[in-house]
Amino acid sequence: MNYSKTFIPTLREVPADAVIVSHRLMFRSGMIRKLTNGLFAYLPLGLRSFRKVDQIVREEMDAIGALEMKPTVMQPGELWKESGRWEAMGDAMLKVKNRLDNDFVVSPTAEEAFTAIVRDELSSYRQLPLVLYQSNTKFRDEIRPRYGVMRGREFVMKDAYSWHRDDQSLDETYQAMGRAYRRIFKRCGLTVIPVKADSGAMGGSGSEEFMVESEIGDNTLILCKNCDYAANVEKAACGTDFSFRPSPEAAGTASANIPPFEKIDTPDVRTIDELCTFLATDSKNFIKTLIYRAVNVELDLSTAPGCKNLERKKTSAEAPAVYPEAFFAVAIRGDLDVNEMKLAALVKASEVSLASDADVTRLTNAPVGFAGPVGLDTLPVIVDHTVTGMSDAVTGALAKDAHYRHVAYGRDFSGWRIADQWSADVRTVKAGDSCSLCGGELYEKKGNELGHIFKLGYKYTRSMNVSYLDENGKSQIPTMGSYGIGVDRTLASVIEEHHDEAGIIWPVSVAPYHVIIVPIKYNGEVKTAADRLVAGLEAQGIEVLLDDRDERPGVKFNDADLVGIPWRVVVGDKGLSGTKPQVEIKHRREKESRMVDLEGAVADLAGHIADELMELNRD
Amino acid sequence: MNYSKTFIPTLREVPADAVIVSHRLMFRSGMIRKLTNGLFAYLPLGLRSFRKVDQIVREEMDAIGALEMKPTVMQPGELWKESGRWEAMGDAMLKVKNRLDNDFVVSPTAEEAFTAIVRDELSSYRQLPLVLYQSNTKFRDEIRPRYGVMRGREFVMKDAYSWHRDDQSLDETYQAMGRAYRRIFKRCGLTVIPVKADSGAMGGSGSEEFMVESEIGDNTLILCKNCDYAANVEKAACGTDFSFRPSPEAAGTASANIPPFEKIDTPDVRTIDELCTFLATDSKNFIKTLIYRAVNVELDLSTAPGCKNLERKKTSAEAPAVYPEAFFAVAIRGDLDVNEMKLAALVKASEVSLASDADVTRLTNAPVGFAGPVGLDTLPVIVDHTVTGMSDAVTGALAKDAHYRHVAYGRDFSGWRIADQWSADVRTVKAGDSCSLCGGELYEKKGNELGHIFKLGYKYTRSMNVSYLDENGKSQIPTMGSYGIGVDRTLASVIEEHHDEAGIIWPVSVAPYHVIIVPIKYNGEVKTAADRLVAGLEAQGIEVLLDDRDERPGVKFNDADLVGIPWRVVVGDKGLSGTKPQVEIKHRREKESRMVDLEGAVADLAGHIADELMELNRD
Repeated sequence: MNYSKTFIPTLREVPADAVIVSHRLMFRSGMIRKLTNGLFAYLPLGLRSFRKVDQIVREEMDAIGALEMKPTVMQPGELWKESGRWEAMGDAMLKVKNRLDNDFVVSPTAEEAFTAIVRDELSSYRQLPLVLYQSNTKFRDEIRPRYGVMRGREFVMKDAYSWHRDDQSLDETYQAMGRAYRRIFKRCGLTVIPVKADSGAMGGSGSEEFMVESEIGDNTLILCKNCDYAANVEKAACGTDFSFRPSPEAAGTASANIPPFEKIDTPDVRTIDELCTFLATDSKNFIKTLIYRAVNVELDLSTAPGCKNLERKKTSAEAPAVYPEAFFAVAIRGDLDVNEMKLAALVKASEVSLASDADVTRLTNAPVGFAGPVGLDTLPVIVDHTVTGMSDAVTGALAKDAHYRHVAYGRDFSGWRIADQWSADVRTVKAGDSCSLCGGELYEKKGNELGHIFKLGYKYTRSMNVSYLDENGKSQIPTMGSYGIGVDRTLASVIEEHHDEAGIIWPVSVAPYHVIIVPIKYNGEVKTAADRLVAGLEAQGIEVLLDDRDERPGVKFNDADLVGIPWRVVVGDKGLSGTKPQVEIKHRREKESRMVDLEGAVADLAGHIADELMELNRD
Repeated sequence: MNYSKTFIPTLREVPADAVIVSHRLMFRSGMIRKLTNGLFAYLPLGLRSFRKVDQIVREEMDAIGALEMKPTVMQPGELWKESGRWEAMGDAMLKVKNRLDNDFVVSPTAEEAFTAIVRDELSSYRQLPLVLYQSNTKFRDEIRPRYGVMRGREFVMKDAYSWHRDDQSLDETYQAMGRAYRRIFKRCGLTVIPVKADSGAMGGSGSEEFMVESEIGDNTLILCKNCDYAANVEKAACGTDFSFRPSPEAAGTASANIPPFEKIDTPDVRTIDELCTFLATDSKNFIKTLIYRAVNVELDLSTAPGCKNLERKKTSAEAPAVYPEAFFAVAIRGDLDVNEMKLAALVKASEVSLASDADVTRLTNAPVGFAGPVGLDTLPVIVDHTVTGMSDAVTGALAKDAHYRHVAYGRDFSGWRIADQWSADVRTVKAGDSCSLCGGELYEKKGNELGHIFKLGYKYTRSMNVSYLDENGKSQIPTMGSYGIGVDRTLASVIEEHHDEAGIIWPVSVAPYHVIIVPIKYNGEVKTAADRLVAGLEAQGIEVLLDDRDERPGVKFNDADLVGIPWRVVVGDKGLSGTKPQVEIKHRREKESRMVDLEGAVADLAGHIADELMELNRD
């Protein structure tokens, strides 16, 4: 392709709202333009790289037997009402009514559409497992779309869905997807951090996120310096520090020689910091007690303190009965934070949040700031593992301006026994904690999610009435998985990882062109040599951009660096004038160029490109 | 691909709403499924053929230097307000507000989005001509979506747009597009009828529609039995029958020996049919006079009868001033119909429609049914060419229950002189009329529009303020073209043209697979031979579907015919058992199969497929 025949409007300036590298470089290199906030058009150069990422995803999906389909972008609202997500998706899902008052949704994801199709076609166990996917336009109405295509409103997501007879079959596909995702990112030249949700406390639920490190990432990752443990902070398990968790009885016995707990006056002292100052001690010596309100609690609370009068209710025929509202106290070491995701999972609630001041006052019989586990019998107290080792602690005394000291776990209080355990892991892991796998030191990174694989289970197949007949002719409900990759975000992440001050440095697999040929002046002998190179390279399937513009070499070199084509070949009178005509070859990543015989240039480039592709495609 | 590993849910039954062949066969062969009215999902088999059509379009666009882009499907409403189409597009364009009260449009076409991007990047004449395109999701809210993907609500359209310095450059791209479109349809195996709008009375406006014959077509085409004249009935020019159009004076002189016109009583006779019966004569002897209401009339009416008090108004700063409303009478031979498109073009109105009864009564001073050109001076009378030869006609007498007879054009009345002509072509051409090019007999066909190329001119570049600097540094506005192809509709039309009672007969260029291999029983020697064939064919780049299902041969044959793979290879024990093992090869179009040596089967098929492709791709 001749540069003058394409449309690559490169720029020096950067729009004010382009704060991250990929956004700046995609804009400057003429890959994208903004239509309005969160809506970007790919120009020809950007589309070439976009297509390559999309095609890599497609190849890896096809390789594991997933079958591509194309449902519509506009989807019937009825399907979302069936699944129960019409309301649940919130305002990020764009809903439209047409002139006939039909409801439509601009697809933010497509569990419903795929499930509706499979529902009509699935009859026998012999059709399972079935894995279908699309790579298609999605829309999510981000309130603050930012960072270019990294967080746009419209984007392309590859979304796959699978249906299975049993957990084992689901797991096989789930594992195959995980391997395919690793290959996809590897082939794009990306370093991803696979974050397993089941690597710790949450149990083997089956969910893995593929993250890239990013300063502007939405996610905080917890990583181990010693092993390959990686978790989203929302789900990271606590380390082995508290692997010895004494029963209340054992702890109580061990605390025999601690003085009995006693009440102390702490006028106007409410926060942990104030207490530390007041008692001249460290927050690690306090037991912090927080009151949480949980909604739609599935856990059986019939024997829990203060829950006698709670009634379970059915929200739908299919769903189990739940307590619409319940309160819990959490006792945790004073320097630590409660992880609400872990707490919600523990009590099987759809959501937990700190209780209102009024609820705290009512339940603790004291103003906010004086809650403590000793004598607290109006609600279930959940004891974090960190508290089980505390035998001389300070706690709130359930009364204004009063605390207890010399409080010992097991001797003076124990929590409510939950899931057959006296204590639980509900704390937020942080940098410096020790790894739950190897005890190594944990550290934090910010990350962006590029992909997510997820065992959905029966959520959609139940609510949308999907069934098949098993070997015995009995009707069964299939279990389901869901697997997504953001194509635009993956592309932008490649630039985040591969660039320098001058511009993009494309991995050859997703480069818009493999080679850029820069004739110093595109005429005479130079033109002949450049044209011969183009023909030779294209005959080998190599994609070439020929900079035939009437511009100074400096301008052409700057554009070549900005646009980031992996291999640059400079053709000039000087190199051609020798007895053996030569051209100058340089890889975008390298500083130094080398002179190569014109004769052998095609073979030289073809060899290097094949090597780089092989390296990227290697498992 | 093994049949058992894909997802091709073929069916015997047809949904009740599938009334056309392509809809029935796409549904039965498992190519598509309905999500709701007008929204269809392509299943894996359908997507393969869809992609091939899409790719042929892409290749031909690239071949003429058009550059592919990808703007968003959801587009900012602001752009449509700028162009003036926010209101003008009507309810078929879906508008959405998000939670921040931003307006969005689900793209029905993309003149605005492309023009907005070009506006920001265009600076110099050296960038022109510029041709950009996309092949992307569109949505138009059909009130009655029907005929499967032939007239769905969501569809994929390839839409290209071009910008030019002058009409000559626009015409070059327009002609190149026309040639590309012919190649696209040829490569898909389609017989299209290119219908030029400028082939007749409408002048060289520059618009060509690519039609396929279809019983359920939206368009009526007028074709000549003798030459290649083809026109949309909306625009078809009248034939040479009235090429002699006498001036009123000449006609009046020629009518000297006709008796003077006289009033006759025609009680309760209002329609032409009633008059024919009453006077025992033919409708060809009547002058029918119809009153039309026209809106936004650009034509200068300052000297027209009854228009003295009309005032021109500006609807926007850029647009010329227009009369918001004006009335016209049209006098036409009694057996003919007025073509409202021609009339609107003649008087330069945005729309014309029959006037209300109240307006007719007010303007003709008589009840509806008694209008006539004699003495009608309350509005401009437009005389169709057909009336200029009538010298002894019957007309309404502008009074209840009264007509005139012996009316002669020129002697008793003449129309308002419009565009320097005493008469005009405003009649609807119909089968049996004579061709305006060669005088041959015209006939009608119903047609569906697959593509449309169009010289837009300055409509969008003016309203959206696009400009560039010419060689002299002077700011200029570019002229523009627009070129669309419906991808889904093209695919469905291939099936309409290529099928039989048993199913689809794919042209090899858009077939989901080139070859289907049907082992009589997929095991033992047969399996070995079938697998070897698959490997051999795939090594040649031939796409193979291997029917490895444990089904009776009859079931497999029926599915192969329904799905329409061009080449079928049957592998059975019998054929393999001879000294020279043989397989049975049959083209989907043919009744008879032939036995071919297993050895030579790959070369045989590869040769035939290459031949068919070459034939389809031949210019």
